[in-house]
Amino acid sequence: MNTFGNIFRLTSFGESHGPGIGGVIDGCPSGFELDMEAIQRELNRRKPGQSRITTPRKEDDEVQFLSGIYEGKTTGTPIGFIVWNKNQHSADYDNMKQVYRPSHADYTYQMKYGIRDPRGGGRSSARETISRCVAGAIARQILAKQGIDINAYTSQVGNICLDKSWEAYDLSRIEENPVRCPDPEKAVEMEELIAKVKGQGDTIGGIISGVITGVPVGLGEPVFGKLHAALGNAMLSINAVKGFEYGDGFAAAGYRGSERNDCFFNDNGKINVRTNHSGGIQGGISNGQPIYFRVAFKSVATLLREQETVDMEGNDTILKARGRHDACVLPRAVPIVEAMAAMTILDYWLMQQTRNCW
Amino acid sequence: MNTFGNIFRLTSFGESHGPGIGGVIDGCPSGFELDMEAIQRELNRRKPGQSRITTPRKEDDEVQFLSGIYEGKTTGTPIGFIVWNKNQHSADYDNMKQVYRPSHADYTYQMKYGIRDPRGGGRSSARETISRCVAGAIARQILAKQGIDINAYTSQVGNICLDKSWEAYDLSRIEENPVRCPDPEKAVEMEELIAKVKGQGDTIGGIISGVITGVPVGLGEPVFGKLHAALGNAMLSINAVKGFEYGDGFAAAGYRGSERNDCFFNDNGKINVRTNHSGGIQGGISNGQPIYFRVAFKSVATLLREQETVDMEGNDTILKARGRHDACVLPRAVPIVEAMAAMTILDYWLMQQTRNCW
Amino acid sequence: MNTFGNIFRLTSFGESHGPGIGGVIDGCPSGFELDMEAIQRELNRRKPGQSRITTPRKEDDEVQFLSGIYEGKTTGTPIGFIVWNKNQHSADYDNMKQVYRPSHADYTYQMKYGIRDPRGGGRSSARETISRCVAGAIARQILAKQGIDINAYTSQVGNICLDKSWEAYDLSRIEENPVRCPDPEKAVEMEELIAKVKGQGDTIGGIISGVITGVPVGLGEPVFGKLHAALGNAMLSINAVKGFEYGDGFAAAGYRGSERNDCFFNDNGKINVRTNHSGGIQGGISNGQPIYFRVAFKSVATLLREQETVDMEGNDTILKARGRHDACVLPRAVPIVEAMAAMTILDYWLMQQTRNCW
Amino acid sequence: MNTFGNIFRLTSFGESHGPGIGGVIDGCPSGFELDMEAIQRELNRRKPGQSRITTPRKEDDEVQFLSGIYEGKTTGTPIGFIVWNKNQHSADYDNMKQVYRPSHADYTYQMKYGIRDPRGGGRSSARETISRCVAGAIARQILAKQGIDINAYTSQVGNICLDKSWEAYDLSRIEENPVRCPDPEKAVEMEELIAKVKGQGDTIGGIISGVITGVPVGLGEPVFGKLHAALGNAMLSINAVKGFEYGDGFAAAGYRGSERNDCFFNDNGKINVRTNHSGGIQGGISNGQPIYFRVAFKSVATLLREQETVDMEGNDTILKARGRHDACVLPRAVPIVEAMAAMTILDYWLMQQTRNCW
Repeated sequence: MNTFGNIFRLTSFGESHGPGIGGVIDGCPSGFELDMEAIQRELNRRKPGQSRITTPRKEDDEVQFLSGIYEGKTTGTPIGFIVWNKNQHSADYDNMKQVYRPSHADYTYQMKYGIRDPRGGGRSSARETISRCVAGAIARQILAKQGIDINAYTSQVGNICLDKSWEAYDLSRIEENPVRCPDPEKAVEMEELIAKVKGQGDTIGGIISGVITGVPVGLGEPVFGKLHAALGNAMLSINAVKGFEYGDGFAAAGYRGSERNDCFFNDNGKINVRTNHSGGIQGGISNGQPIYFRVAFKSVATLLREQETVDMEGNDTILKARGRHDACVLPRAVPIVEAMAAMTILDYWLMQQTRNCW
Repeated sequence: MNTFGNIFRLTSFGESHGPGIGGVIDGCPSGFELDMEAIQRELNRRKPGQSRITTPRKEDDEVQFLSGIYEGKTTGTPIGFIVWNKNQHSADYDNMKQVYRPSHADYTYQMKYGIRDPRGGGRSSARETISRCVAGAIARQILAKQGIDINAYTSQVGNICLDKSWEAYDLSRIEENPVRCPDPEKAVEMEELIAKVKGQGDTIGGIISGVITGVPVGLGEPVFGKLHAALGNAMLSINAVKGFEYGDGFAAAGYRGSERNDCFFNDNGKINVRTNHSGGIQGGISNGQPIYFRVAFKSVATLLREQETVDMEGNDTILKARGRHDACVLPRAVPIVEAMAAMTILDYWLMQQTRNCW
Repeated sequence: MNTFGNIFRLTSFGESHGPGIGGVIDGCPSGFELDMEAIQRELNRRKPGQSRITTPRKEDDEVQFLSGIYEGKTTGTPIGFIVWNKNQHSADYDNMKQVYRPSHADYTYQMKYGIRDPRGGGRSSARETISRCVAGAIARQILAKQGIDINAYTSQVGNICLDKSWEAYDLSRIEENPVRCPDPEKAVEMEELIAKVKGQGDTIGGIISGVITGVPVGLGEPVFGKLHAALGNAMLSINAVKGFEYGDGFAAAGYRGSERNDCFFNDNGKINVRTNHSGGIQGGISNGQPIYFRVAFKSVATLLREQETVDMEGNDTILKARGRHDACVLPRAVPIVEAMAAMTILDYWLMQQTRNCW
Repeated sequence: MNTFGNIFRLTSFGESHGPGIGGVIDGCPSGFELDMEAIQRELNRRKPGQSRITTPRKEDDEVQFLSGIYEGKTTGTPIGFIVWNKNQHSADYDNMKQVYRPSHADYTYQMKYGIRDPRGGGRSSARETISRCVAGAIARQILAKQGIDINAYTSQVGNICLDKSWEAYDLSRIEENPVRCPDPEKAVEMEELIAKVKGQGDTIGGIISGVITGVPVGLGEPVFGKLHAALGNAMLSINAVKGFEYGDGFAAAGYRGSERNDCFFNDNGKINVRTNHSGGIQGGISNGQPIYFRVAFKSVATLLREQETVDMEGNDTILKARGRHDACVLPRAVPIVEAMAAMTILDYWLMQQTRNCW
């Protein structure tokens, strides 16, 4: 399924070396004045070639809106859009046409569909995230009007990781370095590591952390539409993601209830909690506290070194990728994590309008 | 939303202290002869009171089917079912009626809906998993006919954890101990830990690992319906779950591509992989390798000791739960993890029938 | 699919001779105080044996709620319910077990699913409408609070038909006669006709008209979710329905634009229309005028006379139904038409809460 | 909602005077070789300016595919497409910007969304059917491979109507006249009527009949997904449609069961029916007989004569449309009826693959 969301819905299309990547946003509230530059800014954040540690492929991605906007405002009708593909070096992929790249989707797509567009990964390319980026940028603007703010940042690359919780950092500073890490010193270390790995024709994984503030109490649709389940689903749908956790996450396994329950108290007339180990969600419903989560990314599968593999006939062969590739996907994945979070929260915020309204 | 799945769909209902817990299964293939005892066996696996380390509450849960089955076979029409609630000690919860239990869903339900059934957690009670258990048991039987097998087991309780991968264990032996751990020695340690924690009126978290074997190549619906995203969503919808990972999971963050790519090779005429770090899923589509994943559970929020909290008016108060509760949810959650995995895989298996069929 | 609706969703289950007919209502707004007697009253309106012209089968249908209601109010969690089947004369259907009844669903169910519950039509029985009746009764109560009122009535039986538009009748009087027709004289004629047809072991069709008043401007979700398309879908899902029209309906084919356009005018400061040929919906969105529509029902397929048919092996045979059957389905279908209209309008009313809300 | 279908899904976008009209087709079976000329042919059938009785607006609509097709074959990934708008005479609509056209969607869109694109009807324009046309053309090709054939034709314009059932006509000849009527003599009468009405600045309605042959037994998803309910929903979603009936339709109201039941008989070893009053669907499931139905269209609302109306402030005013408009929508609606039928049947055909498959 290429549709995400229930009320605010993105339907996505496009292959990396086809005419373009685009989508249709349905269910967007009407009469909202869009900040077009802010949308383009989000696209710029995900585009390659921003620094020495991202792929030098040039992708001057510009979004063209096709419908649903009149005189700068959303009309409530579906917002179609496309980002045209340019400068595709399809020839770079000629040697991959008949070969299954290890840990890529070539083999599974071929087996599932009996056919695939082999150029640049086709539909399974990370260029597909362009459509998420555009829809997410719109969702963010609408959420911002409600005081809901979404931030993500690189918190680990290889074995270099931030050791403090998100509150310890100034998240507005992540754009100051190419890895999008709020700790300037760690950012340098991470950048060095990525550069080194890249020089070896190798790649490296990492973790992106996300924080959502200003979420009102009450978002979430138990039992199968729990808010964190929707967030998890959203994050796990991003290419290369291997895990998702929120609140205490996997560490919760080691704790006792008496250590980690979030006790309520009367905070000058308002109900508040002493701690937020729950991560802002209880019973699948937001409790008004900041929602925080972490997303694990594996290393990029495309290596600029020789790897053992087979061709479509099953013959053993050796593959060495050409072209320009990321050695670490995280810096460019930060805006995608934010986009997916924005779409999820907006979708649930809209849903909540139907729950207590008669 | 209380519906799970696209083709094979479970719609669930019920509160812990209402008349019963039940559901409707839509889209179940027709003409399938159900093993009724096997369904009841799954229900027995999740019921309380199985050992000294689970809650001694008696819940002799028996499923009554209401439709969709004729002469022992599924008819393709919706399968309604109910498990009647018995022996509810609602009085145990009288003191909680006006109080928000810490790290429970009382507060968020009250805020979201403006009303809640406070008896035993109402809809947010883990008794809700009964309906998952029934639907999952049916899904498992259908999958078994396709050679698809699903197993889960407790791999960590507190800080006691298994140190080997799933292949190292005989998963058919997990029913031999009350914690459902395939390592008999660790199982004893875990049991001791739970008993100790319980004696202190405290609770403890842990991790359940799952393995799905026999999955054909091709299940999964990119880009937003990736198979692991659906599995993650399924697991995160279970009460008390804080995280999900598959394949290398969070550990993938620390590895390089050259260490962790799954290289293809010609295995006596068949395409095979040297390793399975991907966890059986590539590009969101199953590749025929075993799918393995891990699910993190926090400690149970109900403590048999005093905790600070507030009542519905916001007044500070002290809460001490009465009644009978689990000190660790994992042993009884193992069949739920299996049930959710079974429903997810069957749903995608059915979906795949539409993809390449003309 | 056994689920109806997007936000307010009914999932239905049950066979006519199984344990019962029931359903799950998801997405019902919370905190609504239900009038339980009004729900039972709707069930009574559809039950057999209300007069000499309906089937004398006794079906004392009483609804049992299983969840989602606490102290008389909806809690926002799914409302499970069941109406237990009683007094099924399954023996009446023994001779039909191996035989395909003409113009029934026996043959198509058998071919689609490879199996069917032959007792009383199984899932294809009109007893299935019980669940619509219950969910519709709840929807009506919520709509009534918004000033939205729904009425249906028998406007044609055989060739006896009302010749005036709905405004000409007092729809509050339809319960005064067994055919639920607002014209007392025509009602007598219709009743006579049904009695006569019944005496001949035959059956007869007719038309039910519906009117929805108090609908605010703005309900409807173009382009594929047009309000009248949803209403048509709802009505066509009722057993024995062969057609749906709204506003001018099929008669519109014969008119010119100049005769039938609904001209706007300034009505003491408010925008109003001179006529309502559109039937309260323009471009798929309600315009605030009364919505009116007509639903065509074929004659009941079960005849108490001999009919040619085949058995499951394809052998020619003669079938004569036994038992107690309606000679005309319309009187008992009136509440079902109202129920489906209520669910549709409520669903769209809830959806509209998400459209213009930031 | 701008998405149609469950498995084979079209998500549509575009306004009449925006950049273009397009859509995304998800769930299309993979590996299917598309006949691109046939798709363009369907677009040509709906385009204006085909004869003296259709609007002389020039719309040389050409479809550009954006994804999902590789070397002429579907890849199973979403098929994005767009038809660019050209030659829009937006100036023709300047005088309508502030005015609500009678029996159009101007008023309801403005009230629902608080904003609208007034140029040429914006989203509510019949140009939106372009995306249905493209998706339907693809669906038809896939169905044709299964031996399923879909035909529609104009059976009534004003009071001129065909008096025989579809079997009496050679449906392959409908392209021989501009009204797409299989009776050449009636076609001339219809054409004359339309020309006359057009000369008067007026418009006229009519009826389109549809026939689907070759449908296997078993398509349809009771109880809310009955095949005819889905067809009705599809037809009612087309602009200007006021009614839908199938089989005996509204006429069924006047008949007795003994006259109209479809009796089964043994037809040389195969089960067959003596008649097909049911219209090929019983209990919501196809029975293998031809499916036939009728769709009522009202007259076009745009008149080239003066009409009373109001402007956006509610002031009374007089409107006279300029520009080029159809006097009768039916000839160009025939391919749209076929397209919607094709999408519906393919969607259900795909769904059926999941129903009896283990």
